[in-house]
Amino acid sequence: VPAGLIRIPMDDPADVPRDLDDVLPPGRAPGDVRAVVVKSEGNGCVNDFSRALAARAWHERVTSAVTVVSGGTEGVLSPHATLLFEDVPRSDARGDLVLGVGKTSRIAWSELGSESHARDVGDAVRAIQKDLEVEPDDVALVLVKCPLLTQDRIESVKAGGKKPRTEDPYESMAASRAASALGVAHALGELDDRQLRDGIAGDRDVWSTVASASAGGELDTCNIVMLARKPGSGGALRATNVVMGDALDATGALEAISAIRGAGGTVRQIFAKADPDPTGAIRGHRHTMLTDSDLHSTRHARAAVGGLLAGLSADPMIYVSGGAENQGPPGGGPVVVVWEPVP
Amino acid sequence: VPAGLIRIPMDDPADVPRDLDDVLPPGRAPGDVRAVVVKSEGNGCVNDFSRALAARAWHERVTSAVTVVSGGTEGVLSPHATLLFEDVPRSDARGDLVLGVGKTSRIAWSELGSESHARDVGDAVRAIQKDLEVEPDDVALVLVKCPLLTQDRIESVKAGGKKPRTEDPYESMAASRAASALGVAHALGELDDRQLRDGIAGDRDVWSTVASASAGGELDTCNIVMLARKPGSGGALRATNVVMGDALDATGALEAISAIRGAGGTVRQIFAKADPDPTGAIRGHRHTMLTDSDLHSTRHARAAVGGLLAGLSADPMIYVSGGAENQGPPGGGPVVVVWEPVP
Amino acid sequence: VPAGLIRIPMDDPADVPRDLDDVLPPGRAPGDVRAVVVKSEGNGCVNDFSRALAARAWHERVTSAVTVVSGGTEGVLSPHATLLFEDVPRSDARGDLVLGVGKTSRIAWSELGSESHARDVGDAVRAIQKDLEVEPDDVALVLVKCPLLTQDRIESVKAGGKKPRTEDPYESMAASRAASALGVAHALGELDDRQLRDGIAGDRDVWSTVASASAGGELDTCNIVMLARKPGSGGALRATNVVMGDALDATGALEAISAIRGAGGTVRQIFAKADPDPTGAIRGHRHTMLTDSDLHSTRHARAAVGGLLAGLSADPMIYVSGGAENQGPPGGGPVVVVWEPVP
Amino acid sequence: VPAGLIRIPMDDPADVPRDLDDVLPPGRAPGDVRAVVVKSEGNGCVNDFSRALAARAWHERVTSAVTVVSGGTEGVLSPHATLLFEDVPRSDARGDLVLGVGKTSRIAWSELGSESHARDVGDAVRAIQKDLEVEPDDVALVLVKCPLLTQDRIESVKAGGKKPRTEDPYESMAASRAASALGVAHALGELDDRQLRDGIAGDRDVWSTVASASAGGELDTCNIVMLARKPGSGGALRATNVVMGDALDATGALEAISAIRGAGGTVRQIFAKADPDPTGAIRGHRHTMLTDSDLHSTRHARAAVGGLLAGLSADPMIYVSGGAENQGPPGGGPVVVVWEPVP
Repeated sequence: VPAGLIRIPMDDPADVPRDLDDVLPPGRAPGDVRAVVVKSEGNGCVNDFSRALAARAWHERVTSAVTVVSGGTEGVLSPHATLLFEDVPRSDARGDLVLGVGKTSRIAWSELGSESHARDVGDAVRAIQKDLEVEPDDVALVLVKCPLLTQDRIESVKAGGKKPRTEDPYESMAASRAASALGVAHALGELDDRQLRDGIAGDRDVWSTVASASAGGELDTCNIVMLARKPGSGGALRATNVVMGDALDATGALEAISAIRGAGGTVRQIFAKADPDPTGAIRGHRHTMLTDSDLHSTRHARAAVGGLLAGLSADPMIYVSGGAENQGPPGGGPVVVVWEPVP
Repeated sequence: VPAGLIRIPMDDPADVPRDLDDVLPPGRAPGDVRAVVVKSEGNGCVNDFSRALAARAWHERVTSAVTVVSGGTEGVLSPHATLLFEDVPRSDARGDLVLGVGKTSRIAWSELGSESHARDVGDAVRAIQKDLEVEPDDVALVLVKCPLLTQDRIESVKAGGKKPRTEDPYESMAASRAASALGVAHALGELDDRQLRDGIAGDRDVWSTVASASAGGELDTCNIVMLARKPGSGGALRATNVVMGDALDATGALEAISAIRGAGGTVRQIFAKADPDPTGAIRGHRHTMLTDSDLHSTRHARAAVGGLLAGLSADPMIYVSGGAENQGPPGGGPVVVVWEPVP
Repeated sequence: VPAGLIRIPMDDPADVPRDLDDVLPPGRAPGDVRAVVVKSEGNGCVNDFSRALAARAWHERVTSAVTVVSGGTEGVLSPHATLLFEDVPRSDARGDLVLGVGKTSRIAWSELGSESHARDVGDAVRAIQKDLEVEPDDVALVLVKCPLLTQDRIESVKAGGKKPRTEDPYESMAASRAASALGVAHALGELDDRQLRDGIAGDRDVWSTVASASAGGELDTCNIVMLARKPGSGGALRATNVVMGDALDATGALEAISAIRGAGGTVRQIFAKADPDPTGAIRGHRHTMLTDSDLHSTRHARAAVGGLLAGLSADPMIYVSGGAENQGPPGGGPVVVVWEPVP
Repeated sequence: VPAGLIRIPMDDPADVPRDLDDVLPPGRAPGDVRAVVVKSEGNGCVNDFSRALAARAWHERVTSAVTVVSGGTEGVLSPHATLLFEDVPRSDARGDLVLGVGKTSRIAWSELGSESHARDVGDAVRAIQKDLEVEPDDVALVLVKCPLLTQDRIESVKAGGKKPRTEDPYESMAASRAASALGVAHALGELDDRQLRDGIAGDRDVWSTVASASAGGELDTCNIVMLARKPGSGGALRATNVVMGDALDATGALEAISAIRGAGGTVRQIFAKADPDPTGAIRGHRHTMLTDSDLHSTRHARAAVGGLLAGLSADPMIYVSGGAENQGPPGGGPVVVVWEPVP
């Protein structure tokens, strides 16, 4: 299952092409689409209904695909869908990426953000990895779409005599992203048991280099999309992994993009996480993302990191998701550049 | 009057150092400070009271200086003040920048955004330029802090039987920035009379390469700060001018910064404008800055362009102001890098 | 077609009861529902995708009904749907309300907010009124859901060589509501031709006492729902009309509700408009709804008037829509209390 | 020290009358003003700089007065200052209110929101009460302005090896209000030691009927203003206390206002707290204040309760403060109507 990828601009969150055959490459049909990864134009926070609208619209068109809809196209970011599909293997292909998808069973609301949540994600990740017949080190990217706690869900946990992870719906997004990312990292051997538990307890210094988790209220499972390197699989795509050390760290991404283009390659998509540095400062300079009561910190971070990566790549139709708890170092985040070598 | 420049981080909008002598270079006293250019942490829009608070706090400390307080430190941008002062001329100085300041008389509310407003700014700019004994082409940067129309001011214009430029306070900011920038451009010969009038009529394709205007409700004049090149003036600073063609245009700024650093120079400050492309798209890709009813477009633009320039310079304590009407091409904006050569 | 009405709480914008038969009165089926009037929990402004999501979810369930989805449940307001259905006429009924629905053809984007838009609405209103065989004076309420101009639509008008009513999507909502309300008022004889034109030109002092218009990006026609008094029609519902003079005017609504309840009646629903007074003051006291760049004025107004009417009626599941241009006097708005006498 | 009260509209947060003698009653001078209670037009949350600006402007004019600046004039609320001054005792006075002010020493950031914070407030309240020679039951209103935790303060607590009450600046406002209100309640005998501790631990069912606390970043002490009943003190003012059971509870306030006006009295000011019901519902109907990531819950609540009380009193220049933790029952809050009988 070599991975294929196309990007489709969206005019609004329900904007799905009438005929997907028109936009897919020759020989590929909607049934080949395994994952739809959307950047929709809501606030990316608790009450972002653009996500549910986009998920609904795409589900109607590609019924069998897993969706990962991440809200928030602040600044220059451009709303779009990235379709990941099973490509036709070619013997002369110069890429190596393969594609797998999966999902956990329903995450109990009382367990959201817990070690159990992380382990559920980890189990699903391992299953995909084994199914793809790749090693943990081969994994280039694991996108997770995970649930959040709405007020109703919080009340239901309390009514059941349990204590929800947090009583603040916005904070539940961070807890859900953290558990999901830690689950990925643990499954892939980036973290051991103890580090997993430290992470669940709030330690931000244990992290994955390939996980990218986004929370939303429109689902109750975790949806998972994996890209992994598997030489000889016959695909056209490759991936370059970079980790931004903080939101100013342009060097790695700039070098990666320059190297790809310098060799005649084409960048097909960038998947990145953007994090409002939890210390309230970047390289010793105070930022105001955490104290702005009019605008949540994840929106700030997406706008800034999106502006940087879109500028570096000269492309605003990239996937930048906000809130990188345990995804890269605090204040930073993983960047995965998917590209195609000269044929 | 060679220009000197220091930057001071601010912990809140009223945070002014107790003793300015401690932060100014040896031999310089608060009385030498001619301009205080602040990035304060409000929303940068109509009800940004961080601007008035910062202006008040700085005025109490440097009573004779002109203030330009621009609100909005979205994303990675870090609140700070740039103090521009009269430096001691040195015979071996390798820089050329000189500094001048001024202000218009009160802008009548009925004239805000009009040709008359522009010509008032132009007159003040010419006066500073002549006073500095530099040619129009020598001017590197003209910062303007200009008023806006509050609801009260709009009502007062109507009560006087006149028609305000707009009845929307937020839109009056754009009109005020445009008229101010057009006045600068006209005074410096960047535009002729007809282009000035076209600009006032809404033509965004006539623009200045050196003007940077910011609107606020906390003043009723236009405050003006000019940096110009004057070889032999004995200063330490130089300026490199770049114009971003759009919000993704990293090339010019990246090259300028690389050239300065490659030659051993030090970037002292970056002054930039950020614009939400008025067509709703950047290089053919839709952006959502103009249709986000939760977050004004200037905030989006500041976050994105601030993220890009801060990343390129590895410095978040830069001056990025939002809304670049007639300041650079639509969607783009001027960038002025102030730097110091190897001594 | 006597009007029946039930209200259904919604847990999220896509929350539609699995089986409508369970919630409709005995003898009534989904096919009897003619209109679904929703208060959904988005921002009620340009990028409120909760409206499209709710409209989509309800359309799937009651395919033949007209939808009017108004975003914004600020403050105490509670998200819900009001279903208006054809009730079974009863000979001993003590109410008089009848129900009609309709829609205009597509509003050309270049005409949005124009006299032509108003006349299209007026024609549709007259058609419903004639179909119901009631006189203009009998009409108790006309709800209109009308389009707005997105950035794309604005650009398309300009590309066609025409000038859109406004280039600001948020302002296009006000223009659309105004034209829709003026069309209703003109059709019902509340305004003559000259007043209609004055209203289109911006005169807020010509207004309807029964129109309630809400704009959204999720449609390109105007959807219309009418309640009218027709004695002998065999329905259970009555309506009391009040006009709030401004956002503080509690008297009329309080008296109406007291009278209904005092006589043993039951309030079934309240339909109201909330307006941020366009002069920037209420009874001489400045308000800040028009100068708050973090929060649009219609959100402010909905929260305040919603808080007042919900408090007066002890019921937060009411329909309060924001922006009452030409719907009641400036700063005020129509209030229609639908109630049921003692059987 | 009989209490006198006047209200002064403010055109912006720095708008203080040039000459206070002009606005104070004959015989009263600025030196008689003991407290300035402001409703300023910021967001009332962490980054509300209108509070600091107003406090600064008023401090310069009435240097000896205590300030309580509460941000947030959502909806119809009108920005203003309430000046409380020592009135001239009159033998024929029909009122009974006396006025006292005080402040705690600096609240250690590590103790903000703790029992120690509460007890500090309690000590200050008792001191004022004793100084006024009134009994706990005589106290009609205790306004508290208390600090919040900015990101810097949170980091400083952590750097000192302690755990701040919360790492979320917005949540620190609630914790600070709660501790302040519990301190008042404990000092006045409304709560015993155990209830105080339960409250600090998060129990919302222990509450004061007279406390009204507002948090802000512009101070590091708690400022306290007390009104108490003391027959024979020679003042003109009286107070009626009501407790709203929830945000829809109009009955008590409506009856109080009606009774006062029915007897020929004049309402001079209303002090109220507005609370977003922490269960996410009001009388069984879901509200969306806690899940709106674009607008904080306290802003929602102020708008709604402000709209209700302003409508009931036909006066938008009232003091409504958001977030009523341990001030009235969860979702409700105390309302104190200060009025003047017929002379």
